Amino acid sequence: MKQIIVGMAVGLGLWWSGGALAQEEIVRYTITSVAENRMTEEVSLSSADITPASAPWTLVKETLHGGKQEGVEIITLDNGVLQIVVVPTRGMSIFQVTKGDVRLGWDSPVKELVHPQFIDLESRGGLGWLEGFNEWMVRCGLEFAGHPGRDQFTTNTGDTAEMDLTLHGKIGNIPASEVEVLVERNAPYRITIRGVVHERLFFGPKLGLVTEVSTEPGSDTFRIHDEVTNHGASDQEFQLIYHGNFGAPLLEAGAEFVTAARQIMPMNAHAAKGLSEYRHYKGPTPGFIEEVYLMEPWSDKNGQCGALLKNRAATRAASVHWNIAELPYLALWKNTVAEADGYVTGIEPAMSYPFNRRVERAFGRVPKLAPGETRSFTLDFGIHEGKEAVEKAEWRIEKIRDGRETTVIETPPELPE
Amino acid sequence: MKQIIVGMAVGLGLWWSGGALAQEEIVRYTITSVAENRMTEEVSLSSADITPASAPWTLVKETLHGGKQEGVEIITLDNGVLQIVVVPTRGMSIFQVTKGDVRLGWDSPVKELVHPQFIDLESRGGLGWLEGFNEWMVRCGLEFAGHPGRDQFTTNTGDTAEMDLTLHGKIGNIPASEVEVLVERNAPYRITIRGVVHERLFFGPKLGLVTEVSTEPGSDTFRIHDEVTNHGASDQEFQLIYHGNFGAPLLEAGAEFVTAARQIMPMNAHAAKGLSEYRHYKGPTPGFIEEVYLMEPWSDKNGQCGALLKNRAATRAASVHWNIAELPYLALWKNTVAEADGYVTGIEPAMSYPFNRRVERAFGRVPKLAPGETRSFTLDFGIHEGKEAVEKAEWRIEKIRDGRETTVIETPPELPE
Amino acid sequence: MKQIIVGMAVGLGLWWSGGALAQEEIVRYTITSVAENRMTEEVSLSSADITPASAPWTLVKETLHGGKQEGVEIITLDNGVLQIVVVPTRGMSIFQVTKGDVRLGWDSPVKELVHPQFIDLESRGGLGWLEGFNEWMVRCGLEFAGHPGRDQFTTNTGDTAEMDLTLHGKIGNIPASEVEVLVERNAPYRITIRGVVHERLFFGPKLGLVTEVSTEPGSDTFRIHDEVTNHGASDQEFQLIYHGNFGAPLLEAGAEFVTAARQIMPMNAHAAKGLSEYRHYKGPTPGFIEEVYLMEPWSDKNGQCGALLKNRAATRAASVHWNIAELPYLALWKNTVAEADGYVTGIEPAMSYPFNRRVERAFGRVPKLAPGETRSFTLDFGIHEGKEAVEKAEWRIEKIRDGRETTVIETPPELPE
Repeated sequence: MKQIIVGMAVGLGLWWSGGALAQEEIVRYTITSVAENRMTEEVSLSSADITPASAPWTLVKETLHGGKQEGVEIITLDNGVLQIVVVPTRGMSIFQVTKGDVRLGWDSPVKELVHPQFIDLESRGGLGWLEGFNEWMVRCGLEFAGHPGRDQFTTNTGDTAEMDLTLHGKIGNIPASEVEVLVERNAPYRITIRGVVHERLFFGPKLGLVTEVSTEPGSDTFRIHDEVTNHGASDQEFQLIYHGNFGAPLLEAGAEFVTAARQIMPMNAHAAKGLSEYRHYKGPTPGFIEEVYLMEPWSDKNGQCGALLKNRAATRAASVHWNIAELPYLALWKNTVAEADGYVTGIEPAMSYPFNRRVERAFGRVPKLAPGETRSFTLDFGIHEGKEAVEKAEWRIEKIRDGRETTVIETPPELPE
Repeated sequence: MKQIIVGMAVGLGLWWSGGALAQEEIVRYTITSVAENRMTEEVSLSSADITPASAPWTLVKETLHGGKQEGVEIITLDNGVLQIVVVPTRGMSIFQVTKGDVRLGWDSPVKELVHPQFIDLESRGGLGWLEGFNEWMVRCGLEFAGHPGRDQFTTNTGDTAEMDLTLHGKIGNIPASEVEVLVERNAPYRITIRGVVHERLFFGPKLGLVTEVSTEPGSDTFRIHDEVTNHGASDQEFQLIYHGNFGAPLLEAGAEFVTAARQIMPMNAHAAKGLSEYRHYKGPTPGFIEEVYLMEPWSDKNGQCGALLKNRAATRAASVHWNIAELPYLALWKNTVAEADGYVTGIEPAMSYPFNRRVERAFGRVPKLAPGETRSFTLDFGIHEGKEAVEKAEWRIEKIRDGRETTVIETPPELPE
Repeated sequence: MKQIIVGMAVGLGLWWSGGALAQEEIVRYTITSVAENRMTEEVSLSSADITPASAPWTLVKETLHGGKQEGVEIITLDNGVLQIVVVPTRGMSIFQVTKGDVRLGWDSPVKELVHPQFIDLESRGGLGWLEGFNEWMVRCGLEFAGHPGRDQFTTNTGDTAEMDLTLHGKIGNIPASEVEVLVERNAPYRITIRGVVHERLFFGPKLGLVTEVSTEPGSDTFRIHDEVTNHGASDQEFQLIYHGNFGAPLLEAGAEFVTAARQIMPMNAHAAKGLSEYRHYKGPTPGFIEEVYLMEPWSDKNGQCGALLKNRAATRAASVHWNIAELPYLALWKNTVAEADGYVTGIEPAMSYPFNRRVERAFGRVPKLAPGETRSFTLDFGIHEGKEAVEKAEWRIEKIRDGRETTVIETPPELPE
């Protein structure tokens, strides 16, 4: 068996670290590595090679072709139940996760996984990010994560100057520098896709993201575990929003959003009008104008908070749980426009709200990382099928609420000049 | 024969759709396809394989290397008389068309077919398009097609905001998502290069261009047939200019432009000074400042209008004919600068004039496409050699004029604020 | 031997020009060529193939992979003493030069050789260049070379308009169009890496850079010889700064900068405070604000001037010499920040100071090239090891000074509005 793995791995241009393979508890495959000057065009792994005692799983890495997706790399991990598609070329975003005919993902009018070479974030007054927006899970950040517009920064002469931030930051359009797959050789045989993405410049932030997407063979849950580190020598502001986007089949007329919020407020006057109905979704509605609701979640004694989207019949749902200390805010983005324009809702655990960083800073929601400091973020996702499973997932959130009320602020926040 | 085609096609990574080959009337080769995740580096087809009864022709697809052209794909169709070079990587622009030593094309100071990865349309205050400008036929559009500068757009909140348009729009720097070759197996054995180019973003236009360049074996004419569709759910403004550019050998001192114009006016005060000589060209003139003339063509009972450029001796000409209902305007761009700076004239059938969209909108020249609506554009080009052929081509335009006068407006239009 | 070279060269996709090889005095290998539509992924040459009588040398061309360095080409020339790494993809910048454990180079927080496809020079208000800044020697230019900000340019209508210049210009992020290696078959067997980089656009500058980096087998010196040509038909402003950057091991606490300056002044009020200590370096200092000193060097009767950086113990140094008529100015950039932020000093022979071109023009420091005019620039570099060699290198600069004084201007220049 060992020889077969070796043969396969070398044949595929894969490598593993460490010594005697049989004694390793974790097998590690390098797919892309700046450190090793390596990029593997195609990779194909399976349970038979590494974890024969586990449920069957496969991992395939491919390169996309044609149009704006030319050269984009994707990794598809099929754990036997879930198919998770990670996009190393686009900052380790997750294109979609499917379980049978349930999908975490949506139908964006942007039809290709766009290579960053074709994205100009400065386009349209800082809205260029929208030309590549179609993944299920996109991180917004790391230097800035919210709306475009003027904000201050510190120049090379130590002075304060102004620059135009671009929508949702850069991290989603930076290719990963290191990509590897880690497989536990013993039960529960956890499989992890790990990527390292650098958002660095001279006279600017030196931020690093180490992201892990992992699951177990046969499981209907998976985890995102991220670490953000300040590699610079000065304190560094940073922002992070987990912009998770859902369309059909979970989103539909009558679909419902569930969370346990300590407080909710509309992001602007338009959203204020829809506040009483914020939990409920319309079907595709041509001309619908987006509504955003800003929440502070309740958490349980372990700091866990959660949110859930279920279909009208309450037979299918997707849930996310995370720690309030890591991501204290939650934005709900309702954009139930016509299907052709991108019928979608965003459930967005975050370190701040999606206003421009200037606004977030004024409200004290832009933390700093000390030199060398790392912050971790863990999000657990589940796909729930059947009325019973959906009820159980809802019940978990009700337990977090534990009977506590939601303070509803009916007017949007007054923004600083 | 069938097996040979199969062998060749598979060996080249080509595929065709449909069933029994012998019964197909059109053979279809996919070169690039997002839908099929395919990009073929090199392709070589010829008449012997598909249309042995026709005049000989060849089609070759190559990838360019070095400098800013690294990775640019070109397709050269030689119908036995014309060599047509299409550039899928640059929005299906046509680099040049040659017939013997006559050329539709010019010598731009930009010497490489520049890959869009090296173009920043926002550069130089919205003039970055000029860093890749060297093709014979470039489409300007689709969201906007004219001069750079501020204009309004509708934001994601439904509000009207302002953005900076960039010169001549994006479509010429978007790689085609689908590229295929269609060959009729029966006379006249028409050969078509078809491309699909998407200009799409979230919270913005969802416009699609399907473009066909086609000719027949042995012919000295060819056709561009384009369709532009609004794939969004709301009405969508769009613009389209066919920016056809000619240098030597047709353009020279004493060369002449011929059309049948109902009305002509200069684009600015500088052009007004040269109005009386608008039909005639100077030789390369260092320091020459461009002159642009704006025309509404006359059309015949079928709606056909036309224009022509002939050399001094009237022994060579190129002509274009199109339908006035599709492209009601014609701009003539005279830029007879020194050869080193790009000695060129542009003959530009268009949906509008090349002012900023803000201006064109004010004059009512920016149409909208309803959701799902498609508009078609057909342009027929000919290369004419010999005095007799040139006279015949001129006579065709005189027949369109049919004795009608040209209204000459001697001052440029007053532009809105 | 001839056949072996032929076989190897063809096998590697290399070609040489000219006729009978045995009679050629210079063997020429084309690595990349737009003219020949060629790009060779991997190249490996050595003395045994071409110059068996010389000291051993090797030349290897590789392509980098992963993250933002995907697709970047580098050429490493090892002359037996020096290892010189040239980056054709980034305007023929020189990543580093090493001799044993001495290095011309530095540790930038930007860790990858960034492909231009990932650079947006317009980013951060014109500071996007900093996202790729990590080479030892980067040319700034050619249309503009200094600080970002508004300046005038001439539009296509001959009018004067304004555009935002971006930091340090474009040339360092343009891939070379032609790259070749030239090897002399006779002593001293000089080996040259030649690149051609075009900075061209329609309605804009048509500037060309031909750069040669050359050394001899066994030597501890090397030369940069550049030619800049105006390929346009009008006079053309241009700028050029040789931004040479040094970190450890030469730069350290107590390291010293040596030159023979006719005049020195601080670039701004902050630098003025450190003027008396401008020659001496601090160790890595968190929070250090950059200091820039502007000098006019003394030159000897041949026009040669020089500068040198030596370590604290004066046991290691790097020197540069050039002709005052070619590069009349020298900027010293002290940026002794923390190692994590990029501990570095720049020694920058130049045609002007690094102010915005608007400022440089006002001071008469922006020359023009006439149509077809070429200017040449030659810089000779040495790495000196051992107290004696360092003293000798210092003595060479003292001889240039020849006892002449340095005029110290204690306040920064007053800049034009």
